[in-house]
Amino acid sequence: MAVYTEVTDEELDAFIGSYDVGRLLSFKGIAEGVENSNFLVHTDKASFILTLYEKRVNPADLPYFLNLLQHLAAKGLSCPTPVASRSGDLLGTLAGRPAALVTFLEGMWVKRPRTDHCAELGKAMAELHLDGADYDGFRKNALDVNGWRPLFEQCGARSDTVHAGLGDEIERELAHLEAVWPQDLPSGVIHADLFPDNVFFLGNELSGLIDFYFACNDAFAYDIAICLNAWCFEQDLSFNVTKAKALLKGYSAVRPLNTAEYDALPTLCRGAALRFLLTRLYDWLSVPEGALVTPKDPMEYVKKLRFHQSVDTAEAYGLER
Amino acid sequence: MAVYTEVTDEELDAFIGSYDVGRLLSFKGIAEGVENSNFLVHTDKASFILTLYEKRVNPADLPYFLNLLQHLAAKGLSCPTPVASRSGDLLGTLAGRPAALVTFLEGMWVKRPRTDHCAELGKAMAELHLDGADYDGFRKNALDVNGWRPLFEQCGARSDTVHAGLGDEIERELAHLEAVWPQDLPSGVIHADLFPDNVFFLGNELSGLIDFYFACNDAFAYDIAICLNAWCFEQDLSFNVTKAKALLKGYSAVRPLNTAEYDALPTLCRGAALRFLLTRLYDWLSVPEGALVTPKDPMEYVKKLRFHQSVDTAEAYGLER
Repeated sequence: MAVYTEVTDEELDAFIGSYDVGRLLSFKGIAEGVENSNFLVHTDKASFILTLYEKRVNPADLPYFLNLLQHLAAKGLSCPTPVASRSGDLLGTLAGRPAALVTFLEGMWVKRPRTDHCAELGKAMAELHLDGADYDGFRKNALDVNGWRPLFEQCGARSDTVHAGLGDEIERELAHLEAVWPQDLPSGVIHADLFPDNVFFLGNELSGLIDFYFACNDAFAYDIAICLNAWCFEQDLSFNVTKAKALLKGYSAVRPLNTAEYDALPTLCRGAALRFLLTRLYDWLSVPEGALVTPKDPMEYVKKLRFHQSVDTAEAYGLER
Repeated sequence: MAVYTEVTDEELDAFIGSYDVGRLLSFKGIAEGVENSNFLVHTDKASFILTLYEKRVNPADLPYFLNLLQHLAAKGLSCPTPVASRSGDLLGTLAGRPAALVTFLEGMWVKRPRTDHCAELGKAMAELHLDGADYDGFRKNALDVNGWRPLFEQCGARSDTVHAGLGDEIERELAHLEAVWPQDLPSGVIHADLFPDNVFFLGNELSGLIDFYFACNDAFAYDIAICLNAWCFEQDLSFNVTKAKALLKGYSAVRPLNTAEYDALPTLCRGAALRFLLTRLYDWLSVPEGALVTPKDPMEYVKKLRFHQSVDTAEAYGLER
């Protein structure tokens, strides 16, 4: 559930007036994004999303994200495009917070992705990786292999309150991944959070990618591993290899994987599962008692992790060498 | 904060497909209305609001509300207009709930209404009262003078936990209003919840009225009394008689008040203040500990009530006989 910052009439008029976007007709808070306040804006020219960046986003990272979106849009990728103000700025201030106006992207996310959606996702992700190759910004992945242990230490012994033995299970996995984590894989800009709710479709066609606020520079194949976790498990947490194969085939058709990436895939999938397991565990243990927001169940990613631990080679994901 | 019911892709496609509204392009939950789930829908033809009615709305009342909106729109009042499905129904079912699709109304509510906004509100309210005069539906006001005591009894002795002596203060007011409440005032359809967030403006012009889910048949002047409470007090809870005068002048220009309405206004204002005091008090005492939603402060309406108790005649509201 999104946070909603109250915006006064005068501040809103002044903010919208600083852009050449036409007359403001409507302004509604929308239930999208958990980190920021998002508003759908209608003007007599077009629709836009106005985002107020709340405290979980580091303001120093915003130029990386906004310039990236502009770079990708210029390359032809369908994503929200930041609108420059009359004075040329992509980033403004509204209600005391950093704020940006981006173009509105039609489309809806798919709650139960099918195989053809996974194929489309694979293609779009590969295009994103190619389009971002010459982006000159750099942002370290704060949640890469080096970020997992500090997060785990904040959960500590309380991990076992979620599931008996969970602490030991995570400790063993963490030690393993720290020892074998692949270096020197082809890298560049990755989305790092390409879950179904960040991918819009119109019918069977992918209409765009949104929510780049975890984007960073890391191994391309790690982005694939995140998507295999997020898109290719069924409700009962069985792995759907047909979807995985479609995703990898769609991706490879645009950007073929090299041997190192192929070999690393099972390890990267374990890492991606652990990363979401840890952030969910942290959120689960941090939620105040009686809160109305139910955090996502960390056990979903424990089960996904166990599947990847059983995998020897990328063939298990339907990928042929 | 609105409730959000999850809607599956297939259900949504089937629901939108049952209307002749074009191709679905976007569907976003919006933070508007506390009783229902509201979604902003874009199609290739227009924008709409899709409402799922949650449990606080009695499904038996929905035909009254939807037929009323259609009646008022046909008279030329600017309000959301229910769209009939291909089979002619205004009310459908989505995600197991009653659901309706209404036209999208451009405009924004004004967080700090000025005097000119109050004048526009007065005119629009009078037009609503005239336009509703020949509406053949009937809905009793569940929160009229007869509904207040049962609500107060549910709060009981806990009232004093909000403010020492509050229980006695309410009991005295209730006894007074039950004794003197005016009967036989000119009546018809009233909105009964015409707070600033239910009135849209584009610049200084009123663009429409929304959220008719408290609409009912009651005294027209009681609707005015609700608005005097909701629009004419400043942040410090001082009464702004200039705004009240503008509101009443705007109203009277369209539908003049008779002598009985004039005389009843101070009593009606006390009643309206008590009605919102009681529902806020009830919500305040009912909120679960640790909940993220902060209920509105009932003391605001205690202070408004005390102002109206100090008033002898409608002249205090800037109204000349």
